[in-house]
Amino acid sequence: MVVQRMNSLGLVETKFFTFAEPPNEMTLESGQKLGPITLAYETYGVLNEEKTNAILVLHALSGDAHAAGYHPDEKKPGWWDDMVGPGKAFDTEKYFVICSNVLGGCRGSTGPSSINPGTGKPYALHFPMITIRDMVEAQRHLIDHFGIGKLLCVAGGSMGGMQALQWAASYPDRVRSSIPMATAVKHSSQQIAFDEVGRQAIMADPAWRGGDYYEHGQPERGLALARMIGHITYMSEQSMEEKFSRRLKNDNYSFTFVPEFEVEGYLRNRGDHFVRRFDANTYLYITKAMDYFDVAGEKLLPDGRQMDTRFLVIAFKSDWLYLPQQSRELVDFLRGRFVDVTYCEIKSTYGHDAFLLEFDEETRLVKHFLSRVYGSAANGQR
Amino acid sequence: MVVQRMNSLGLVETKFFTFAEPPNEMTLESGQKLGPITLAYETYGVLNEEKTNAILVLHALSGDAHAAGYHPDEKKPGWWDDMVGPGKAFDTEKYFVICSNVLGGCRGSTGPSSINPGTGKPYALHFPMITIRDMVEAQRHLIDHFGIGKLLCVAGGSMGGMQALQWAASYPDRVRSSIPMATAVKHSSQQIAFDEVGRQAIMADPAWRGGDYYEHGQPERGLALARMIGHITYMSEQSMEEKFSRRLKNDNYSFTFVPEFEVEGYLRNRGDHFVRRFDANTYLYITKAMDYFDVAGEKLLPDGRQMDTRFLVIAFKSDWLYLPQQSRELVDFLRGRFVDVTYCEIKSTYGHDAFLLEFDEETRLVKHFLSRVYGSAANGQR
Repeated sequence: MVVQRMNSLGLVETKFFTFAEPPNEMTLESGQKLGPITLAYETYGVLNEEKTNAILVLHALSGDAHAAGYHPDEKKPGWWDDMVGPGKAFDTEKYFVICSNVLGGCRGSTGPSSINPGTGKPYALHFPMITIRDMVEAQRHLIDHFGIGKLLCVAGGSMGGMQALQWAASYPDRVRSSIPMATAVKHSSQQIAFDEVGRQAIMADPAWRGGDYYEHGQPERGLALARMIGHITYMSEQSMEEKFSRRLKNDNYSFTFVPEFEVEGYLRNRGDHFVRRFDANTYLYITKAMDYFDVAGEKLLPDGRQMDTRFLVIAFKSDWLYLPQQSRELVDFLRGRFVDVTYCEIKSTYGHDAFLLEFDEETRLVKHFLSRVYGSAANGQR
Repeated sequence: MVVQRMNSLGLVETKFFTFAEPPNEMTLESGQKLGPITLAYETYGVLNEEKTNAILVLHALSGDAHAAGYHPDEKKPGWWDDMVGPGKAFDTEKYFVICSNVLGGCRGSTGPSSINPGTGKPYALHFPMITIRDMVEAQRHLIDHFGIGKLLCVAGGSMGGMQALQWAASYPDRVRSSIPMATAVKHSSQQIAFDEVGRQAIMADPAWRGGDYYEHGQPERGLALARMIGHITYMSEQSMEEKFSRRLKNDNYSFTFVPEFEVEGYLRNRGDHFVRRFDANTYLYITKAMDYFDVAGEKLLPDGRQMDTRFLVIAFKSDWLYLPQQSRELVDFLRGRFVDVTYCEIKSTYGHDAFLLEFDEETRLVKHFLSRVYGSAANGQR
C-alpha cells in the first residue's frame, strides 16, 4: 500500500524519449559518437501555453528521473519529493517540472549497461566516456522535444548543480535562471581522490571482469565499498556523531571483525542496498564525468553582459565534500562577470546530504527566487 | 650509499626482546592469552645511571621500531628522524630514547603474520584481538627489562598518542610526562567509519582468503585501497590542493579509466608502496585496536591529585581526521581533573600528517617541555 504524504503528486510514471541527431548519433565532448540515445524522464505539473513555466530538475550521482511522487511498487517517494509538488518549492501548480535520468545512467537512460546496437550486448567499457556537457546536450534534445525555447530554471545539488552550471555555460540564451546547490565549478584534488578510490574499489573486485560482468552479476563488494566511502563524505562529522556516536549493536565489544559499531552496520547496509539499484560501470562513468567537469575560467561561463541568466547559489556550512568556499568562489567569479547572483549559505549540520534534507530553508529561498524570475518573465523584463 | 643528514644518529639497528609472563603468556584485555611475545625495538642515546632519562617514542598505524637514524640498506632515515637525534627535540645527547614496534605489528613484533607456536603456521585470524592497553602492557615488559622504574616521557602522534595516553592511564606512577599529538581519547563514528571501509577493502579482496593468505601472497589490491583511503584522510584539503590541484600526468584528458590526474597517480603509488612493507592482517588488528580505544570517563585517566604525570597536548589546525576539538576535549578533561597540562594547536596546513612534518614548531615545544620536566625530575620536584 502506498502511504502518501501531504501535498503529494500521487502516482507518477517514468517515460522514455529516444533521439539521435542524424545520422542517428550524437558527437560527444571526447569526439566519440553515440546513438541512438534514450533518456528516462518524468514530468510534474502542466506546461503553459507560452511554454515559459518549465523547470528542469537535475539529479546527483545516485539519483534518477523519479524526483517526486510515488511509483506503484514503492513505499518511498522520489528523491526530491520534499521540494517538488503542489505548493512546494518547485510548485507543480504553477510550474512544469521535468527531471531526466542522466546520459550514462542506469535507471532507464542510455548508459554502459544498455545494449550496444552494434553488438547486441551491453556496452560495458565500450561505452564512450561522457561529460557533464554531454549530459546537458542530451537533455537539450528532450527540452527541444517539448518545444520549450527557454527554461524558467535549471536546478540541482552536487552533480545536479554541475549540470545547472553547464546549462548556463552551454545554452545561456535558453536558461532564465539557475540554482546550483552544494556544488563547485570544478572538483578539487580531494574530490577527485575520493572518486578515484571509489572507482578503484569497483575495478579491484574480480567480479568486475574488466566491465564485462553483465552475464555474471555485479561486482557487488566493490560497488558497496565505493558507496560506503561515498556515504562517509556525504555526512558531516557532527551529523555522524549525533546519529551513531560509539554505540554498539550489542552490549560489549565482540573482539572479532564482524561489524559491531552501529556506524559500521549502517555503512554496510547502505552499501548492500545500493548494489540492488545501481550499475557499477555507471558509477565509474559518472564519477569520471564529475572529475572532468570544469567551468572555471573566462571561456566557459558567459559574461552577464551577454546573458540574462540569474543565479541562486546555495551552499551548506557543514558540507566538507563540496565546501562552501567552492560556492563562494563560484559567486565571486559570477559577480566579477556582472552576473545577477544571490548567494546563501545554510547553517546545516547535515554535511553534503543537506541539499536533500534542508528543504524548509531551501523552499523559502527557492520560492522567493522563482517568483521573482517568473514574475519578471511574465512582464517581459530581464 | 647512505646519505646522512645533519645531526643524524648514523647507522642504527633493530633489536628484539622476547618475554612472557609465566606460564609463558600474557592475558589480553579480551581475556585471551598470547605468548611468547617478541617486541622489535631500537634505542638511541645512553641510559643514565639513575635511569631517569628514558623516553618512549610511540608509533602510529604504519610506523615501526625504526624511529631514527639509518639502516644499512635504506636511503631514508627512520620515521621520526627529524625529532630524534643529537640536539633534536628528543635529544639523544641528553636522553635515552626507546621505540618499539607495537604488539600486533608486522615489523618484527609478534602479530598475525608471526608463527603460532601451537601450529607452526602464521597466526592469521587465530591471532587474538589486541587493544591499545595490550600494546602498552607489552611495552611495560620491555621497560622492566631495561630496569627503568619511571619513564621521563612517553610521546607519539595519532595511534602513538593513544599509547601515550594509555601509559598514563595504565601506569600513572611510571610516567613522568606524556606528549599525545594529533590524537583523541576515543575515535568518533567518522574515524571508526574510515577504519571500517579500510578493513572492508582488505576483506573484500578474494586474495585475503579469510586471513590465510601467507602461502599465497598478500591481498595487495585491498590493502593498497585501504592505504589510499587512509592517505586522503592524512592530508588536508588545502595541502592536497597545493600539491596536486587538477594537474594531469599528460597534457589532455585521456577519456579512459587509467589514472590521469596527478593525485590519482600519487594515491596508487602510495598504495603500491605500502603493500611491500605492511601486512594486511596487521592493518585489520591495529585499526580495530584504535577503534576500541576509549580512555574518556572518570575511571580511566587518573586524577591529577593521584598522579604527577604532566601533559603536553599538541593538535594541528588543519587535521580533519583527529580534530583539534578532540584534543581540546582531552585538555578540558585533564584540567577538570587537576592534571598539569599544556595545550598547543599548531597552525599547520598539512592535516593529520603534520605531526610528522611540523618538526620546527614541535621541537620548540617539546624541548622546552622536556627540559622543564627533566629539570624538576633532577631536583626531585614534582
